[in-house]
Parts: sequence; structure tokens; C-alpha cells
Amino acid sequence: MKELFFKDIQTISTLLQKKEISSIELTNQLLKRIEELEPTLNAYITVLKEEALEQAVLMDKELAEGNIRSSLHGVPIAIKDIFETESSVTTSGSKVFEHFIAERDAKVIEQLKAAGAIIIGKTNLHEFAMGATTENPHYGSTRNPWNIKKIPGGSSGGSAVAVAAGTAFGAVGTDTGGSIRLPAALCGIVGLKPTYNLVHTDGCTPLSWTLDHIGPMTRTVADSRMMLRIMADPENVNLIDLDAEMTDLHGVRIGVCEEYFFENMNLEMKNVVDAAMLRLKELGAEIVAIKLQDLKEAIEAQKMISKSEAYTFHEENFAKTPELYGKDTAYRLSLGHSIPATEYIRARNTRKRFIRHVLEKMAQKGLDVLFTPTNTTPPFDIGSIPPEESLNNIFTLGKTPLGNLLGFPVISVPCGFTEEKMPVGFQLIGKPYDDGKILNIAEVYENSTNWVSYLEKNTAYKTENITL
Amino acid sequence: MKELFFKDIQTISTLLQKKEISSIELTNQLLKRIEELEPTLNAYITVLKEEALEQAVLMDKELAEGNIRSSLHGVPIAIKDIFETESSVTTSGSKVFEHFIAERDAKVIEQLKAAGAIIIGKTNLHEFAMGATTENPHYGSTRNPWNIKKIPGGSSGGSAVAVAAGTAFGAVGTDTGGSIRLPAALCGIVGLKPTYNLVHTDGCTPLSWTLDHIGPMTRTVADSRMMLRIMADPENVNLIDLDAEMTDLHGVRIGVCEEYFFENMNLEMKNVVDAAMLRLKELGAEIVAIKLQDLKEAIEAQKMISKSEAYTFHEENFAKTPELYGKDTAYRLSLGHSIPATEYIRARNTRKRFIRHVLEKMAQKGLDVLFTPTNTTPPFDIGSIPPEESLNNIFTLGKTPLGNLLGFPVISVPCGFTEEKMPVGFQLIGKPYDDGKILNIAEVYENSTNWVSYLEKNTAYKTENITL
Repeated sequence: MKELFFKDIQTISTLLQKKEISSIELTNQLLKRIEELEPTLNAYITVLKEEALEQAVLMDKELAEGNIRSSLHGVPIAIKDIFETESSVTTSGSKVFEHFIAERDAKVIEQLKAAGAIIIGKTNLHEFAMGATTENPHYGSTRNPWNIKKIPGGSSGGSAVAVAAGTAFGAVGTDTGGSIRLPAALCGIVGLKPTYNLVHTDGCTPLSWTLDHIGPMTRTVADSRMMLRIMADPENVNLIDLDAEMTDLHGVRIGVCEEYFFENMNLEMKNVVDAAMLRLKELGAEIVAIKLQDLKEAIEAQKMISKSEAYTFHEENFAKTPELYGKDTAYRLSLGHSIPATEYIRARNTRKRFIRHVLEKMAQKGLDVLFTPTNTTPPFDIGSIPPEESLNNIFTLGKTPLGNLLGFPVISVPCGFTEEKMPVGFQLIGKPYDDGKILNIAEVYENSTNWVSYLEKNTAYKTENITL
Repeated sequence: MKELFFKDIQTISTLLQKKEISSIELTNQLLKRIEELEPTLNAYITVLKEEALEQAVLMDKELAEGNIRSSLHGVPIAIKDIFETESSVTTSGSKVFEHFIAERDAKVIEQLKAAGAIIIGKTNLHEFAMGATTENPHYGSTRNPWNIKKIPGGSSGGSAVAVAAGTAFGAVGTDTGGSIRLPAALCGIVGLKPTYNLVHTDGCTPLSWTLDHIGPMTRTVADSRMMLRIMADPENVNLIDLDAEMTDLHGVRIGVCEEYFFENMNLEMKNVVDAAMLRLKELGAEIVAIKLQDLKEAIEAQKMISKSEAYTFHEENFAKTPELYGKDTAYRLSLGHSIPATEYIRARNTRKRFIRHVLEKMAQKGLDVLFTPTNTTPPFDIGSIPPEESLNNIFTLGKTPLGNLLGFPVISVPCGFTEEKMPVGFQLIGKPYDDGKILNIAEVYENSTNWVSYLEKNTAYKTENITL
């Protein structure tokens, strides 16, 4: 069984459909593994043992009848504990919502369940998704399976760790400044932030709704594609093309902006990312240097929008029960207080101009995508940064927030390791609704490497191995 | 010639194409009429005599060669002095931009010129489009041709008056809270606020860019349809269908919400609007009563968004040279100062909810459009309301601002007169991109009445008649 824990969803789905394994068996084994690893990893806030087993029984029954809902039929996946579920608590990683049970499932969870997915549990996150480390004062820190002293990144840290440590076959995360892509990169998995609004956010606790995105976190690019097909809002799914596939990258033009994206980058990591870029070139892509303007202003706009909207959402609760908020979240929220409307409006105007600028630049140079590192600093030790200094973690660790400001689809793809065996990822940023294209390019890259099998073989998958 | 001044554009276009009149002749006659009427009406800030005559010569030359660009080929129209033009001043009705000459034409003006339109002049407006009366402290008040003591409505008052008084065959206005529809209704012409973003706003001085719309003001519905076809952003024009035509209203379901829209309505005007509703029913439409929720909250949201964005745009100039602003504009701007970001954000959230609510209600009841009065109070005398009390004019006079909050297409159609011979209009509110549908319904109504010929015969068209 153990070798199954690291298989991709497509493989598991085939085994289920061939009846070489049952969903109930898979779910039981996974629950056992979760029980073993959770004391170390702390990836989950809630394990949905009963619901999962119940659903597995139903899925097996349907399989026996030859009724297969999708590639997720009978496959256990994890969801970030920020998505409302009708039968269990949704904490959003907070004390404020410690006992909150929603009236119904979040829209995207409904879609996943309808596709036959088994929701095995709800994963830990940075409190209210407002941070990049998943050091959670209420539910404990989640640990990076590649080195349990290290942060896994965040805010969807629990989701990333579950997938990386083989305690879920895939996961769902949210991303407002990099919260899917950064932990994906730091844990060596694929993370996709789809085009803004492509996945419906109903029933997902907001952080900053004009920047919030929902997306899959998986072991392979193909799994992310498959999950996106299921997760996309039925009303918008026709805007994307997930069918087209590529075998090489001839004719693909990839833009690289050195400024900001490659600045102050850890050298080891830079070598790894440069090698990935070279590989893309070998596969036929043309690499084109570009200059983007007003990057600093755009980053400030992302921060301004994010803190203003977050404060608006929390204002009432924060005024009533400030003591329920963790130190760093409280500090962050306090920054959102008394911002004038004009500053927020100006930030939104900056965003509009920046979107236009990037689209124009991409059109001028005939670019399909932009290439950047996902993370430029290796993860630091859990507890090493005091809460009041943690505000800029996502900006220090990753080159992710501009993807949210743009609202364009962005994928983070594993591309190697530092000498200390901490994973590194790169990003492909596509034009709006080019979700299929970034997946295609990422897949051609992935197929040309052996990172997937490397990750499968090398990730710690037993408690005793977990320190590597 | 005189009888030509009130013809619709389609008729003028036919005459031009049949060479029964030349564009130069038409332009010259119109310039003469403008010279005669302007001292009384004050509809124009700038008359573009030379450019217009130059363009008319070119258009006649092309006509002689059998080269006809569009139905606007060789037809003199007016544009609100808020659209940038490269060769002349764009004041935006302000002292601040008294001498401002833009580097190029606004996008929509470019499109109109490319279609062969003659821009005969730039019309007066409420300062910076921030008001509903077109009482302009810098360029004088524009007068309503139906009674020159009365306001023509605003902010696109000059455009409405030029069309109503036969000093332009059509006009372009902007509408942030009703600035096209309200003066259209008060002057007895058709005013169309298309779906948000359907017409490109580049080169148009913003008031509140998430509420700003650009649209045509014409004598007939058909002319508005034709102008919209030319004015629509080429990238979005495929989202609307301007071809479909109706002969009656069988199968059309029209929603009517009594609350707010018909409240505190002048009784004479109510009778006129009720008669129009009855006519729509006689034409085959089904009238369905509906209740909309949170209307007051939605109206407050429109105000909040509008004042916050307006202040953001003006902040710098207003701080530097407050003395250049008129009293009412200065007062309005002062209200936009020190609004917290949270309030603005909440207003945007209210908007989002309200849009969803209206769409859901329309879907539930199977409605094609909503029907409301455009104006519920007859125009008051020029100078009768002190500047500091004028803030709510647009809310008092018209039921228009929610159309901007929604961003849905709305048309105002003339439907009769008060006993004092002041025009009254009704609105049809369509779903997003149903611009064609509201035009169709409006046209069926218009064809069933004789308002167009009534207006043609009765509008004052000579200086001596102008007081009626």
C-alpha cells in the first residue's frame, strides 16, 4: 500500500476503476497514515473520518455499478479549512470561528463532491489565510515534510503538506498573495492559481475578495488540470480550453523580467530556476527578456488592497473580540484601520493600469507566458520570525503577489532542490483565461524531468523517515 | 431648410446620400442656427466652426465618390465638452481645465469621426459632470428649450438641448448618475446609457469610473441604436445584438417595482408614465409587479462610490486651487474627503449584492426589462436652488442612479408632457448586454406613438418661438 500514497490522482483513479483497489480500502489506509503522521506534521485541523468512509462506501457501490463520476471518483482529497462544509466546523484557522458550522458546502466543495471526491479532512492554514508560514497560534504550526523544523509556507500550508507527505492525493487551497503557489513550491508540489473568478468563491471565507483565488494543489500538472476542470464555475468553464495539449514548446514565447522577480534571490535557488529556464529553451521555447514598469507601485497596490479589504471583513469581530486574534493577524489588521478611501481607490487604479501595461507588453513581444521563480528564499525555521515582523513574509519568500493583482492564471511547478534538499519552484503566468496554456507548458516541462518520480521516491512517507 | 433641423439622423443621412442636400450646406445652416439660438440657450461651450466645415467638405467629396462611411457620414453632431479633442479646448465644464488641449481625440470621438460624423461643437455641462442642472458658474446656465426659465437637467444638459432645439442632429453624453437620461427626459429626447464598459471611456474626463458611462442622445430610438453601433468598443461590440427587431411586444415581460421608483412622484407625471405602461401592455407586453430589496442601501452605495472616486480624481487640483471650483462642486468634493476605505469597500460589496439580487429577481420572474419613470419631478427654475442644496438634485429629479450602480443598459424614452408642456420620460432597464433588447422595446413603443412628430412640430425652433 505504501507506494500508493504518492501516486498521482490519475493513477489512483485507474486503479479504482480497474477495481485493483477500493475507495474504502484507500480511505482507510489513508486515515491510518494520517493518524501516524499528524502528531509530527499537523497538516489537518479536522479529519472527516466518518463522512469520508461513508462517501467511500457510496463511491465503491457506484463503481461496482459501472457508474464513474469523474477522475476524482472515490479519491480522497483534502480541503483548506477555509471552505465551508455543512456537517463540520470551518475554523478559517481562527479562534473567532472555532465552533462555526456552515449551513451548506462551499460551491467548489459541492462541485468536488458531486464529482465523487472523498473529502478526507480540512487542512491547517495561517490564521484567516493572512500569512505565509502556517504558524497558527490556535491550531499549531504545520511542518514541512522535507524538514520538519521548517515552515511549509502558507497560507495553504496544511494542504501542501498533506499532498507532499502522502496524506491526501490532492488538495484545494486559496491564494490572495501566493497562498497556493508558495507552499506548493516550498513542499515540492504543483500549485495552480486559476484566472480570477474562474472558480466560484461562494462559501469560502474572504481575505481580500478582489485578490482571492481558489485552486488545486497536486503532485502532477495533469492532476491540477483535471481538478480545475471540476472546480471551475460551470458558467465560466467555457472561457478556458483545458483540452489542447502540447508535445514540445516550439513556437512558445516566454518572457522573463529580471527586475524584482530575480532580485535578491538565493544563489542556489537561482541556479535551479535558471536550469529550468534552460530546459524550457531546450524544449523549443523562446526566452525573451522584458522590462515591466512600476513594479514597486504595483506591489504596494496589492498590499493596500489586501489590507483594506481584510480590515473591512474583520472590522466588527476585531472591534468586539480582539483577544481572539493571533498576534500577527491582529498586527496586520491594525494596518488596515483608517486607510482613506482615496488610497484604496488609487491602488485599484494602479492595478488597472498595471494589468493593461502587462497585457500590452506581452502583446508587443508576442509572449505566451511570463516565467519567474516562485520562491527566492528557502523556508526559515518555525518560530524564528516574531509575529510583528512576519508581515512581509510572503513578499520575502515569494514572487507571488503580483499574480493576484493581475488576476491572471499562474502555476507553480517544482524544478529542483537546494543543497539542503528544500524544494524550489518556478511560476508560469498566463494571460487571462489561458489556464490551459500554462498547464500545457508546465506539463511539457514536467514530462521532460523526473521530479515527479523523484518526489514520489524521496518524500518522507513514514514517521521515522520524516526528518530525512 | 428649417424643417430639416428636427429630422432624425436616418432621414438626414438619406437626404445626404440622395444628394438632396450637401453636408456643407447642412453644416453651414446649422452653424447659422446655432449663432441665432445660442445667446438664449447656451447649449455650447465651443462651436467648432472651422473643423466642422473642413470635415463637411471632405465628407461631401467622399459622398460624390460614392464612398459612404456610415449613417453618420456628413451629419453634424454635438459632443459633451468632457471628451478630449486634439484640436480644441476640453474644459470639462470647469475653470481648472479652461485652457486644456488634449493630445488626441477621445476613443469614442475617434470612432465617430472615422464613421464620418461632423463634430459641430462641444456642449455645456454641469461642472465636471458633478450635478444635474447644467447651471454652470463658469460657462453660464444652459436653458431648456421647452421653457427657457427651466433647467434642462444635467450633467449632459447642453447635449440634450442641442438635440431638442435643433442645433445638432444627435449628441454624445456621459452618465454617472443619470446625466444622459435625465436631461434627455427633461428635454423630450431619447437618451441611452449602454451597458457598463460597452463604450470605451479613454479620453473622457472621469467622474466616478466604476459608474461612468458614455452614450448617445437622439431624437429617435433608431438613431440611438445606430450611434451605439458606431460608438461601441470594437472589442465588445460582439457582446450585443443590435440587429434583432420587434414588431410588437408579445412575449415581452416587463417588471415594475413601485417602491422607490414611483414614490413621491408628481401626479401629472405619474399619469403620463402610467399611460405609457398601458401602451406597452396594449402592444403585447406583460407587466409584472416585483419587489426589490435594499433599494435605499443601494442608493447610498451609489452616492458613496461616486463621491469617493470623484474626490480621488480631484484631490490634487482641489487642494492646490480650490478657488477654481464652483460652489456646489466644491461642496460635493468636500463630502468625498476623509471617507474611510472600509466604507467605500462596503459600498462596492453592496453593489455586487444588489446586482446579483436584481438579476436573480429578473430571472425568477422571467423578466426581460424593468420599467420606471426617468424623472418624477418637473424641472425647476434656473437659479432657484442654492448650490449647497443642489447635491441631491439628481436623486430628487430622477430615478436614474441605480442604473449606474447596476451597470445595466438603460434607455430613457419620451412619453408625454405635463400640463405646463414639460416633457416626461420613462426608462427601460435591461440585463447586461441586452442593449439591443431595450432599444427594440423602446422602438416598438415609439412607433406606436406620435411623440417624435409631435416633438418635431412643437419644439421651439426659432428664436422668437423659444419661450413657447
